[in-house]
Amino acid sequence: MSSPRAPIGIFDSGAGGLTVLKAVARRMPAEDLIYFGDTANLPYGSKSPRAVRRASAAVARFLAGKGIKALVVACNTSSAVALSDIRRAVAPIPVLGVIEPGARAAAKVACGGPVGVVATSATVASGAYPRAVKMRAPRARVISVACPLFVPLVEEGLWSGPLARGAAARYLPRFKRERVKTLILGCTHYPLLKSVIGRFLDRGTRLIDSGEETALELEALLIRRGLRRAARARGRRRFYVSDDPERFSLLARRFLGRGVGRAVLHACE
Amino acid sequence: MSSPRAPIGIFDSGAGGLTVLKAVARRMPAEDLIYFGDTANLPYGSKSPRAVRRASAAVARFLAGKGIKALVVACNTSSAVALSDIRRAVAPIPVLGVIEPGARAAAKVACGGPVGVVATSATVASGAYPRAVKMRAPRARVISVACPLFVPLVEEGLWSGPLARGAAARYLPRFKRERVKTLILGCTHYPLLKSVIGRFLDRGTRLIDSGEETALELEALLIRRGLRRAARARGRRRFYVSDDPERFSLLARRFLGRGVGRAVLHACE
Repeated sequence: MSSPRAPIGIFDSGAGGLTVLKAVARRMPAEDLIYFGDTANLPYGSKSPRAVRRASAAVARFLAGKGIKALVVACNTSSAVALSDIRRAVAPIPVLGVIEPGARAAAKVACGGPVGVVATSATVASGAYPRAVKMRAPRARVISVACPLFVPLVEEGLWSGPLARGAAARYLPRFKRERVKTLILGCTHYPLLKSVIGRFLDRGTRLIDSGEETALELEALLIRRGLRRAARARGRRRFYVSDDPERFSLLARRFLGRGVGRAVLHACE
Repeated sequence: MSSPRAPIGIFDSGAGGLTVLKAVARRMPAEDLIYFGDTANLPYGSKSPRAVRRASAAVARFLAGKGIKALVVACNTSSAVALSDIRRAVAPIPVLGVIEPGARAAAKVACGGPVGVVATSATVASGAYPRAVKMRAPRARVISVACPLFVPLVEEGLWSGPLARGAAARYLPRFKRERVKTLILGCTHYPLLKSVIGRFLDRGTRLIDSGEETALELEALLIRRGLRRAARARGRRRFYVSDDPERFSLLARRFLGRGVGRAVLHACE
């Protein structure tokens, strides 16, 4: 059985999941966190479901070997196509994806109005968000738009300025036309474009950050299972990547606004 | 020993190398071509040299097994960091990268003026183009700029319009300031942005397409070795990928302006 002192595992194909780590650390600063960026297989968003499933299960097994008490799949593509494979790989450790929490929050605040989703091509193609929203609000209309330029813009640090605004103007007009007032940011990179996205859309449009919602749900899960750590000290954070620790450290500084030291290189195969 | 009837192998991490295939097919329509897109490991441009070397050697061995008479490494990152590993893996089959031919052509036309290079972050970080240019023109000044948004723009089919112009305006001003009149397109995706790039720069700037130069050099190599195919019929083209044949076919249509049928899925490990 797990103990409250065990760490929480969080993984993504790269640095994007750090927005989820940040949300988790903000809510539960005492928890120890182990992050894995599967940078050797990055990006999951342009790979086949089969390839994503294989890579995700390998990372999940590695983290399970570190004695984690819960696993957060901080990658929308992986949450969309590989969640049941991951659950099988690490049972009985509880596994949380980012899609369910985001969809649940959106269904709640949309109150019957249309729900928008912005995500990578792979996540949109999977249909996972519309499915998850409709589980809660069967009559909801869900409008999804793939935004392939958003990730490279974020990774270049272009969170504002003409190129970011140009990309918003390319991808988002449909949401205005269809009077979408609830938009799910269905990729862990996108919270960094929140202000550009928000400024383009109508005032009062609610942006749902799947990472924030996942942190909330994770906390509830830990409390329910008696696994929430009560310590007052700040928890340890450890970082692993499957390739190129230098590039990861650079991106981590951008994503977290501070350095993470050197990530440990580890191949999951 | 190889025969003139043997096919030519061409590989890239994805669909970008199709611009090289196109150039080769235009110069030598009778040749049989086998293309490999290592889409399971795409993009090489953000991976470590070690990872790129391993993946490249595996693909090269696969193509060598198909009885090719020559191998074109139609990927700048791989040409920059893995060429000697690839040569070792498939010896004695002759191997041509895209960097040497591009650098040679640039050194020739620049006549002592500065040479510009646009490429992915990995290719720029490798320093391969400056090194190759200086081999021919030791006193040449080489100015390199990484353009991470160009590949996703091309893959989205955004070869013109405000976003492509915006990206050009972000990356290219330095070449204007420094009066660069010879610019190497150091990534196989970039020829598709030729007109946007050309329009941004001063009139009379020469854009060197590494793929075109590689096709020229390949032809010379085959003639020298008595391996040029003399047939009049159009050669066969076969396409392999290591992941997601559907996405590859879509991109191939964009890159070649026509369909390539279904690519065969094959994992190189």
